[in-house]
Formats: sequence, structure tokens, C-alpha cells
Amino acid sequence: MLKNTLFLIALTAAAQEIHPDRRVTFSLEAPQAKEVSFFGDWMKAGAKEPMTKDAKGVWRVTVGPLEPNIYIYSFTVDGVTIADPVNPRMKLRARTSASLVEVPADTELPWQARDVPHGAVEINWQHAKAIGGEARAFWVYTPPGYAQSKKKYPVLYLFHGSNDTAGGWVLVGHANFILDNLIAAGKATPMIVVMPFGHAVPFGSPREVQAKNVTVFEDYILRDVMPAVEGKYRVTKDRAIAGLSMGGGQSIHIGLRHPEMFSALGAFSAAVPENAGALLNAAPPKLFWFACGRQDFLLDRNRGFDKLLTERKVKHVYRETEGPHTYSVWRQYLAEFVPLLFR
Amino acid sequence: MLKNTLFLIALTAAAQEIHPDRRVTFSLEAPQAKEVSFFGDWMKAGAKEPMTKDAKGVWRVTVGPLEPNIYIYSFTVDGVTIADPVNPRMKLRARTSASLVEVPADTELPWQARDVPHGAVEINWQHAKAIGGEARAFWVYTPPGYAQSKKKYPVLYLFHGSNDTAGGWVLVGHANFILDNLIAAGKATPMIVVMPFGHAVPFGSPREVQAKNVTVFEDYILRDVMPAVEGKYRVTKDRAIAGLSMGGGQSIHIGLRHPEMFSALGAFSAAVPENAGALLNAAPPKLFWFACGRQDFLLDRNRGFDKLLTERKVKHVYRETEGPHTYSVWRQYLAEFVPLLFR
Repeated sequence: MLKNTLFLIALTAAAQEIHPDRRVTFSLEAPQAKEVSFFGDWMKAGAKEPMTKDAKGVWRVTVGPLEPNIYIYSFTVDGVTIADPVNPRMKLRARTSASLVEVPADTELPWQARDVPHGAVEINWQHAKAIGGEARAFWVYTPPGYAQSKKKYPVLYLFHGSNDTAGGWVLVGHANFILDNLIAAGKATPMIVVMPFGHAVPFGSPREVQAKNVTVFEDYILRDVMPAVEGKYRVTKDRAIAGLSMGGGQSIHIGLRHPEMFSALGAFSAAVPENAGALLNAAPPKLFWFACGRQDFLLDRNRGFDKLLTERKVKHVYRETEGPHTYSVWRQYLAEFVPLLFR
Repeated sequence: MLKNTLFLIALTAAAQEIHPDRRVTFSLEAPQAKEVSFFGDWMKAGAKEPMTKDAKGVWRVTVGPLEPNIYIYSFTVDGVTIADPVNPRMKLRARTSASLVEVPADTELPWQARDVPHGAVEINWQHAKAIGGEARAFWVYTPPGYAQSKKKYPVLYLFHGSNDTAGGWVLVGHANFILDNLIAAGKATPMIVVMPFGHAVPFGSPREVQAKNVTVFEDYILRDVMPAVEGKYRVTKDRAIAGLSMGGGQSIHIGLRHPEMFSALGAFSAAVPENAGALLNAAPPKLFWFACGRQDFLLDRNRGFDKLLTERKVKHVYRETEGPHTYSVWRQYLAEFVPLLFR
């Protein structure tokens, strides 16, 4: 196992100090600030941990012990919530970008960059016909050996959540390392993973515009992304579709409306569409797998969906786990879902 | 020309308001702050533009008019320098991450995402033998049509500066769009561009460790990156090497020590190595092109290098332009340098 995944840059100006017992000390230099607090995404939404100032004007807080995982955190300095200024590992968002901390484990975890063959992740730009010709990027994972092989691979379309970007599943979710590890262990079929940008109408639009996002996004996937992927990459016609939160809603919407196109449908802590019942007229994809954390604000919606599917006798798997609405849960779900695909 | 490059996310929560006369208003919500100032990378290092608070606690400043370009900016809130919390377009750095603003032009600029065929950018991970097996990423631009063709392409190795990451030339420099535009206009040979991470010893190491960076980096390029590139991508043996600032120093070091490997050497606002004179024993690459801005703190070092090369009768091109030590200058240099390659 590696000490450092070095996603973007080597960290020496340690923004975080991780203690042997997995408690973590965070610090921020802000001599003039009156009140600084800390938030980590394992905490309840809106909770704050006060930080304490030393004689040099550095504020500190020690939290944990934390389970080994990758967490998102931010500081609030006199009312302004900010990312950690000296940590280049970030979740980039519209509101509000935040920082990442990785608590390592003694055992191997699914999302760690281990010393196994690595796939690559390619950023592709295209002018989306479904979105007025706008230039937008989709990210594509290709498995180890793709460039040297002539094989065709099945494709998983994987969608992010509302306050995220096309890069989120890689930069925060470590989807590429999860796939690398599963493939190396013989637990997953080598596959291509396509990660588009989920906001087909601008993020933060008025409610009536925002409501159109899922149908414009569906159009964008079918008319722009899928033809581009199938024109460029060596792919079979075996496809799966999955997403988290908003992206889980999108995967349910598109997967149920086009079951002939997808052999598997996954939804992680999904914003289940309000019209999901109506979509059930069609036969669902062969594998229909969804999951939610018991501390997630979308738990009731997912339980209701499970109940509806059971009543309608639609074959599905519903998993409940401990955990809130965070990537800590979604990495685990991806690691459980991917081995079920393309078998 | 496009309204929006949509690198990562659509911006609606406008962090910046760009006026028709190319003045720009920046804002930050910070009701409790006592003093907020603004810095943009067209300003003198250390300069600050005060911001003014309105009745709702939003601080604003209007700057410019600015020449059309992409600029880096930050806020300083009661002594803490931060990126714009609601702008996901960032330059990620060790100290201190900052935000990007793009001032559009009526005419077409080299770094804009135009409606031309786009290349792709692939992130590759490998365990670097030269760096103790650490997992690190290098980014690779492939030109439009690469995946569908069987051709081999020449390779430009392109290095970033000290406070930057492997993604900097793409995310901030728009190197991919610069190449797309030049290739579409028939002004550049289609080529592959390899962008490794430039810190082979940890950034911020003690001076005596930091001094070894260039030789460890050279080893990393020759033993890890070049074999990986030549094993994976369809490449010819025609190579060029270039970089900005620290990366310019690295390109001079490696290019002069291995002139048989590179047909061209470029250095943009380079941290010219102190031992550059000694490296000149070898015959330099065929094309030796370097440039510096007249407002750059490295101007004297570059002028001195030009003088040395002239005295030693080493064939080279030295360009001086207006501008400081920023990507505004480096985008332009890349757009001038690339058309000279592989002819």
C-alpha cells in the first residue's frame, strides 16, 4: 500500500496532521479572526467544531478517531466558509468548494491507490447538440491495458451529485482506483466508465428551469455522450447506468425509460424521481440495485421506492447501510455494485 | 466562439460580473469581516485592491478594464488569503490555491475553446521507480482524431512552474485548446503533449533537498515518464521539451544535457539554472527558443542567459514581451512556440 496517492501535488506544508490513533488535527493561520470553526462531512449537516487560537494566530482542532476513508472538510472564519487554503486536494463545487483529507488504513481499502496496474482517465470535450452547442467535458476511465489491447469493453455510465463536477467521481470518489483494485483482484470485468457533467441546465436555475434538467440531461446522454463514446472507444453494446444523489435520480429516470439499452441500473442515495412509479411501466434492467445510508436525508424516499418496487413485484436489490449523504458511502456502494456488472 | 468553456461546471452563482467595457466586479459575502482586499495576477506582487462592504455584508471591487485573457485572483479576508468560495474554476496550488476569471474577447484568442475538433487529455498513473515507487500522475494531450487514426505523432514534454500541479497547463494554461486551435488552423503539426508533475522531491523541502529536484526530476522523466509514454502512445522519436518558470529551468537542464533526444527546447520565463553555462558544452537542440516578460522578476536571469549564449555563439531565439510572471504570458509563448516544432 502507498503512503501517498499524489493525485495532484505532494503535500509537505501539512494542512492536516494524522495521528497514529486516527485522530486528525487541522490548522488554519488566521491571526485576526475572532471565531473559526471546523466542519467535516462525517458530522451532522450544520454542525460546527470550534477551533482554538494559539499565540501565533494559528487555529487548531483535533477530531476523531475517524474510520479510514476520504473526508471533505471546510473552515468557517468569522462567518465565511472556505476550503483549506494550503491543501490542493479539493472537491470543486459551485457552492462551496471544500478540501479533502484521507485517513489511511492498515488494511487495504477499495479506494486506495495500490501497487496494481492502473487504468487511465481521459477528459473529452465536445460541443453538445442537446445543450445549444456548449463545450463540455466528459471524463472516461479506461481499464489497465486498454491502449495496448484490441478488445471491446462494456460501459458503465456513472453520474455525480448536484453540487459536484464531471471530475468528482475521480478526484473525490477515486472511482478509477476502485476499478483498478477490483480488476486486479479478478472481482470485476474490465470496463470503461463514462462520467459526464450532470447539469444540463445551469446549476442554481429557477425551479421551473431546474425541473427540466433530467430530460435535457437524458437527451444530452443519448444524443451527444453515447455516440461520442461509441465512436471513439472500443465498446460492446453491454451497458450499465448508475449515479449518486441527483445522479441516482438521473440513472433511475434514464435506466427505466430505456431498459433495452442498459443491462444494469444502480442508484446510490438517490434523489428518487417523483414520477418513478410512472416510469415502472417498462420492464426494468436485468439488475436493479440501489442503496442508501440510514443517516441520509433521502432515506425515506429510498425506503418508499423499495416498498413501491416490492408492491409492483419489480425485481430489485435494496441495501441499507450506516452512513450519511457522503462519498464515504458512495465509494463503498461503487465497490459493491461494480462486481455485479456484465457477468 | 463559445460563451462558456464549461471546464468543470456551469457557473450561475456569478462570482464575477464582467462588464461590456471589460471591467470586472468581484464580490464576496463576509458580513463579519473588518477588512477585505482583492489581488489579481496582473497587479504587482503584494499589491492589494481594497473592497467595499454593502448593507447586506457583501464586499465588492470593480477592476479593469482588463485585456481579454484568463487571470488568477484571490481575496484576503482579515489577513487570510483565500480562493473565491463560489467559483469552481481554480488554480490548485500548495500555497495558496486561487480562482480563475476569463475575460472574453470579440476576436478569437489562441486559448479559447472554439468550435473546432478537440483533442483529449488523459491522466495516467504510474509508480515512479525514480521516486521510490510513489504513485504519481502525468497528463497527456492527444490531438483530434488520435483514437481513430493509426499515425504516429511527435511529442512535446511540457513542464509547469513551482507552485502548480500536473494539471496546471490544462486547467489554467488551456494548453489543449491552444493546440486544438493551432492544429485546426494548419499552424501546428498534430502532436502529443506530455505534462508530468514537476516536484520530484516534496515541494517546500529544505533548501539542500530542494536543490536535488532537477536531477531527480530528470531521472523521473527519462526512467519513468518517457518509457511509459513510448510504450502506450503511438509516437515518433521526434521530441521537444519546454516549460515555464521552474519547468523552464528543468527543460533547459534536461534539453541541454540530452540534445540527441530533443529537436527543440523552449523555456518560458525560465528559472535559468545557475550552472547553465556548464551545460552548454554540448551542442544544443536544433531549435532553442526562450522568452521572458519585461515585468518578470526573472528578466535579468533571462537577459544574462541570452548574453551568454550570444558570447558562446550558440544559436538561439530570445524574445522579450510585455508582461509579468503569469500564465497570461505563458499561453502566448506556447502559442508562438508550438508552430515552430517538428517542421
